[in-house]
Amino acid sequence: MFRKTFVRSTQTLRSTRALSTTSSKDLVGVIGLGQMGGRMADNLRKHGYKLVVCDPEATNVQKHVDQGAQIAANAREVAEKCDTIITMLPSTATVENVYLGTDGVHEALRSDHLLLDSSTIDPIFTKTLSKELHSRGATFVDAPVSGGVAGAQNGTLTFMVGGEPEEFERVKPLLKAMGKNLVHCGGSSTGQIAKLCNNLALAIQMASVAEAMNLGTTLGIDPKVLKNIMDTSTSSCWSTLVNHPYPGLMKNVPSSNNYEGGFAIQLHRKDLGLAMDCAKHAEVSIPLTCQVHQLYNMMVSGGHGKKDFSYLLPYLKNGK
Amino acid sequence: MFRKTFVRSTQTLRSTRALSTTSSKDLVGVIGLGQMGGRMADNLRKHGYKLVVCDPEATNVQKHVDQGAQIAANAREVAEKCDTIITMLPSTATVENVYLGTDGVHEALRSDHLLLDSSTIDPIFTKTLSKELHSRGATFVDAPVSGGVAGAQNGTLTFMVGGEPEEFERVKPLLKAMGKNLVHCGGSSTGQIAKLCNNLALAIQMASVAEAMNLGTTLGIDPKVLKNIMDTSTSSCWSTLVNHPYPGLMKNVPSSNNYEGGFAIQLHRKDLGLAMDCAKHAEVSIPLTCQVHQLYNMMVSGGHGKKDFSYLLPYLKNGK
Amino acid sequence: MFRKTFVRSTQTLRSTRALSTTSSKDLVGVIGLGQMGGRMADNLRKHGYKLVVCDPEATNVQKHVDQGAQIAANAREVAEKCDTIITMLPSTATVENVYLGTDGVHEALRSDHLLLDSSTIDPIFTKTLSKELHSRGATFVDAPVSGGVAGAQNGTLTFMVGGEPEEFERVKPLLKAMGKNLVHCGGSSTGQIAKLCNNLALAIQMASVAEAMNLGTTLGIDPKVLKNIMDTSTSSCWSTLVNHPYPGLMKNVPSSNNYEGGFAIQLHRKDLGLAMDCAKHAEVSIPLTCQVHQLYNMMVSGGHGKKDFSYLLPYLKNGK
Amino acid sequence: MFRKTFVRSTQTLRSTRALSTTSSKDLVGVIGLGQMGGRMADNLRKHGYKLVVCDPEATNVQKHVDQGAQIAANAREVAEKCDTIITMLPSTATVENVYLGTDGVHEALRSDHLLLDSSTIDPIFTKTLSKELHSRGATFVDAPVSGGVAGAQNGTLTFMVGGEPEEFERVKPLLKAMGKNLVHCGGSSTGQIAKLCNNLALAIQMASVAEAMNLGTTLGIDPKVLKNIMDTSTSSCWSTLVNHPYPGLMKNVPSSNNYEGGFAIQLHRKDLGLAMDCAKHAEVSIPLTCQVHQLYNMMVSGGHGKKDFSYLLPYLKNGK
Repeated sequence: MFRKTFVRSTQTLRSTRALSTTSSKDLVGVIGLGQMGGRMADNLRKHGYKLVVCDPEATNVQKHVDQGAQIAANAREVAEKCDTIITMLPSTATVENVYLGTDGVHEALRSDHLLLDSSTIDPIFTKTLSKELHSRGATFVDAPVSGGVAGAQNGTLTFMVGGEPEEFERVKPLLKAMGKNLVHCGGSSTGQIAKLCNNLALAIQMASVAEAMNLGTTLGIDPKVLKNIMDTSTSSCWSTLVNHPYPGLMKNVPSSNNYEGGFAIQLHRKDLGLAMDCAKHAEVSIPLTCQVHQLYNMMVSGGHGKKDFSYLLPYLKNGK
Repeated sequence: MFRKTFVRSTQTLRSTRALSTTSSKDLVGVIGLGQMGGRMADNLRKHGYKLVVCDPEATNVQKHVDQGAQIAANAREVAEKCDTIITMLPSTATVENVYLGTDGVHEALRSDHLLLDSSTIDPIFTKTLSKELHSRGATFVDAPVSGGVAGAQNGTLTFMVGGEPEEFERVKPLLKAMGKNLVHCGGSSTGQIAKLCNNLALAIQMASVAEAMNLGTTLGIDPKVLKNIMDTSTSSCWSTLVNHPYPGLMKNVPSSNNYEGGFAIQLHRKDLGLAMDCAKHAEVSIPLTCQVHQLYNMMVSGGHGKKDFSYLLPYLKNGK
Repeated sequence: MFRKTFVRSTQTLRSTRALSTTSSKDLVGVIGLGQMGGRMADNLRKHGYKLVVCDPEATNVQKHVDQGAQIAANAREVAEKCDTIITMLPSTATVENVYLGTDGVHEALRSDHLLLDSSTIDPIFTKTLSKELHSRGATFVDAPVSGGVAGAQNGTLTFMVGGEPEEFERVKPLLKAMGKNLVHCGGSSTGQIAKLCNNLALAIQMASVAEAMNLGTTLGIDPKVLKNIMDTSTSSCWSTLVNHPYPGLMKNVPSSNNYEGGFAIQLHRKDLGLAMDCAKHAEVSIPLTCQVHQLYNMMVSGGHGKKDFSYLLPYLKNGK
Repeated sequence: MFRKTFVRSTQTLRSTRALSTTSSKDLVGVIGLGQMGGRMADNLRKHGYKLVVCDPEATNVQKHVDQGAQIAANAREVAEKCDTIITMLPSTATVENVYLGTDGVHEALRSDHLLLDSSTIDPIFTKTLSKELHSRGATFVDAPVSGGVAGAQNGTLTFMVGGEPEEFERVKPLLKAMGKNLVHCGGSSTGQIAKLCNNLALAIQMASVAEAMNLGTTLGIDPKVLKNIMDTSTSSCWSTLVNHPYPGLMKNVPSSNNYEGGFAIQLHRKDLGLAMDCAKHAEVSIPLTCQVHQLYNMMVSGGHGKKDFSYLLPYLKNGK
């Protein structure tokens, strides 16, 4: 919850420059090699990029070193070696630490740095971070993704990018190596905002389908018929068309596979939590988001955190 | 809230038959000539049907009499004169009274009666009513509509029909005179169920878009950009694609016209209330429906009952 | 959900009077001999009243017959035999049927009848029923109870009475045989209103204590200390003082006995449902009541319907 | 939202000690002289303490200087001059900055320092702060208050104190100068936890009374009668007994004074927000707290942020 603070580097820009003579346009630094970041790194390598990697988990790092990646001890070292860096990290606090903390990127920051943060984090912090990095001449965009692990694996992610138009142009080639759809959402932090807004609306819409299906089928309508009606009416939405929560109606969706795979409740909950933080800060009312967040909380407490969020339907039905 | 009870007719079926000699296949009885029923009657007349009309409001009746319709004093008289009857009434209690109350349809019920109820009412009562009418040999379907006053006017309503397949076939010609899409939802009451489920999901989805737009634009993303992203992402739904709540983004939607026209909050609230009644009876949990219902309640209390339900966005924004 | 309708008696008042010659001031009719009504009847007998009883369950009736009670086949017969009748029934529909249905009280109604309904039902129906019975000259009060099975057993119930002051005076002696506190709440139906309002506030307050205890103890405060602070501060309420939901803090409360005994969730849920019906009818917003009702629903679905409502605490904690 | 970071002092402890030779047991530092802190300082002075004060607002400071207080430029200076310091600040971020930021208390921290934080802040940060200060040998307790501006004025505050038993003993004399009830809640941060838990339960309970009164009076019960019943029944709580939200039932409560005075919605909202932050961090479900927080949000948006929180009743009633 509380971010590790950073000590501003006493190194002069000159000495930083000296260290950075080894950097190269060919090298891309990847900080964060988890489920998503690791697969994104794989796709960068497949597209010919040479990587400098950094992650606290040795096993995460080793896989990439085996494929020829250089290793860096910390974010500062990555910044010394690479002009281009992409970060894919689990929390706002980690992003703050990696960019602005001790041994962070800022200690080796150069004006020719091209920095991308694909983590899903608090957009208000993104704005602060962006201001700091821009003030020191670097390029920085927020570029959170949708598409999940499968999208990361297959290089079909959607990137929602917040930054100046010229920054967006500059990061396009790199993003194309990892994703399919590149959406420019506006200035700094708008990528984060777009992602949070989409994800809160998605959670509520899944709940809308879950409630409708729960009530309708209990009252006696055939689930297939109700799906068909909703698909083609004013309650049509992605959660009924593509990721329907009623088991057995669609193939290859989590609800037909014991709610495994898909978008894990505990990950989706994180996004709702970020949206609530922002809403509190901005004094915006989002009552349904809050209610769904609480239902997600209860589902996690009940042991369903790794299930797809369409598990809302059986949870409402069975009360557990 | 409490339905007027009915007195079972002491008339024998034979005397009823005697009265019904005046009935004709050409005649259609229309009971309920409000905003919707009146326009539906107009379309029946345009399609060559001769009408027998009944409504407590003299002015509602007069318009149709001026166009050649016969007048009936009560539902029983309509049933005596017509083999085919369509009802479009404001509440479950009124439907109960018209079909089963004193001077109701049941007092002149014949096995060759073809009865359609297009009111939006409690599906559990519909099931009871259907059982009663079927036990006496009549054909009865529930056929609630979507499409609003404009759809009724233009004959482009969607009918969601609950009844046996042969009943659905039998009512098709009549429905085609008033609507465009005829959806067979299954056995008796499934038309009502489908309508309620669609409408509760619709209300929740509108709230999802309202919350996303409220948060996103307050944090600084351009509303057009956010709409475009949502339109093409996992939070895509009718409420963002077709009836967007943010003012000025789309032409010819209520949000661009001071939230006038469209689906009035107080009417939508009625459907949510019916869904809650059913959910209570069936012991089904629909927490978000309940929460939106309360927001609708508050909007009605605040004087916005006649506004389109997309008014949720400014209501959440301004707290009034 | 839908009430059995009544057929107005064709018996003349005279014939009814003739039948009622057997009635006596000493006799009290008790209709409804369930968990509550049976125990209330026992206390009436202990206070010297002679009983005429009526209940669809033969075993419920037999116990009282064994103690000298007369048996009546239906509510009409009770009304023929007794001037004073108390009803303790499970639903609004049953009350409607017993008073106004076929073989109901109304078929033998006399102006010297003293009628008390201790059922917890829809106050709007109570008002309708009261009007009907008063128009025929009878005395009628609504007198729902609090205190549960234990209060019924020990004759310590609280009666919340709705009726005219002189009606309240007239029923006092009878109520004193079954209860301890007699509260005159105002005119007809105010007893029901008071009970519903108390019970909805109670449910919400229990949730308030559950949330505070859940959060506080997880963050590390000692549950005893937090209870003591709440007991003596601005969050003091009956649910923390008398029926605390945290296990082991108080003796002889359900939370210290595996949440058994006490006020069953499924019974409390019924009261919340009645409150929601009234609120819908009266267009009143009660958002927290609705939310707690949905949590109760989920707890019942999860198999906890017979537990005390303080089970909210472990349910929120464990998500099941 | 994001806290100013601190730079650890390069000053040696020895030089700090040297500076502190001017400190005295008689001197108390007060950092934060707002509505609450200013009045608490007044009471300390009345009890004979000599003050060193610090506040960014010059007018806040001047009042106390006029009464003989010394002025300090920043928190470090206060710590240099005083062994005992009390802080009363508006946010977690400000507390972090005052204790741990540049020119903060930590730069002059001594093991004989006695530090009290009476701000209402995030208990998880309090735990972090406490650990840091204790590791350097100082005494530190969290001691948030209840009782509002009137309590601060009259010296009748309740202090909820988190700290070791010997720390509690050590701060007692000082707290007695400003308050009436001193409650030891347990180890570090439990004062904050107790306050948040009390205040979230309080908000929900006020809503429970508002909903009950709103429904009951609309259905026709006399508000005085309903209050009396609730006061003495299972829905009895402080919000009905002491701060009833229905106007005109009690004298000297905000509801009888156009909802002015009392506990401002915007302040209460802050506490609910802190509770939600903690709940998110601790993965605890507090659904009703979240819903009330959203209602508070809407009331603030609607322009009622300065009203007493009992304004929930008219807000629910009027939807604005």
